[in-house]
Amino acid sequence: MSDEQRLREIEAFFHEQIPLTRAMGVRVESYDGKQLVLTAPLTLNHNHLGTAFGGSLAAIATLAGYGFLWLELGDRRAHVVIRESAISYRRPVRHGIRAVCRRPEESVVAVFKSEFASKGKGRIRLAVTVEEDGLAAVELSGLFVAIHPR
Amino acid sequence: MSDEQRLREIEAFFHEQIPLTRAMGVRVESYDGKQLVLTAPLTLNHNHLGTAFGGSLAAIATLAGYGFLWLELGDRRAHVVIRESAISYRRPVRHGIRAVCRRPEESVVAVFKSEFASKGKGRIRLAVTVEEDGLAAVELSGLFVAIHPR
Repeated sequence: MSDEQRLREIEAFFHEQIPLTRAMGVRVESYDGKQLVLTAPLTLNHNHLGTAFGGSLAAIATLAGYGFLWLELGDRRAHVVIRESAISYRRPVRHGIRAVCRRPEESVVAVFKSEFASKGKGRIRLAVTVEEDGLAAVELSGLFVAIHPR
Repeated sequence: MSDEQRLREIEAFFHEQIPLTRAMGVRVESYDGKQLVLTAPLTLNHNHLGTAFGGSLAAIATLAGYGFLWLELGDRRAHVVIRESAISYRRPVRHGIRAVCRRPEESVVAVFKSEFASKGKGRIRLAVTVEEDGLAAVELSGLFVAIHPR
């Protein structure tokens, strides 16, 4: 499967399995092994002030973590969930939403993959930022868990 | 305005101003001065595992905070935003989503209202839980800010 096909496949999986992502208009923009980028238009995700709704921002940041782990594991059947998260809303998002999940240090990814393979369950902390005009508008730090499908 | 009318008015405001709440099927179930309860059906908010999507849970918990502050201030024009939040996903939500924002201690509410009135800006920490079968499935602690409309 080409990289582009893999992105479209993850996007279709989001839309089919998590109906809210369709309502949000979530797109999988790019993945280069170092970072996964998701986008969503403001028209579907604004709040009462005309900026991005905090709930949409939390949702897309969470999805970026799920998507990163599916791509990293190369296995969309893995049961990925979020255990806890801390979110800072630093500044309003005024245009489209663009969420970036950056790959953690290699040692962190290696421990996660090794636990997933040996114990059938891996935990990893991921950082996701929503960026606009070169600034981090929202920062999420989340503890994600992937469980091997039985 | 009767209590029931006030709930329907907040619900309509959510649906008009924050389109994602319509896609989520958010309803304002009750408010008795001590707690505000919002609900949303699983059919519109499930994830790839058939339980409630973490993003929907974060979104409805955030909305419960907004709604509580609008009702408490008696002023829907107040600009309510969330500054930061910490969320624990303790157990999967398997049926409908039911988010409860409980009124903080009276002294905390009093400081918030006094700052809102005197400085035009009040901050308050609110706790919201998503409950199922009598257990807290999700806990959000959020720092909310209300700004007086100019």
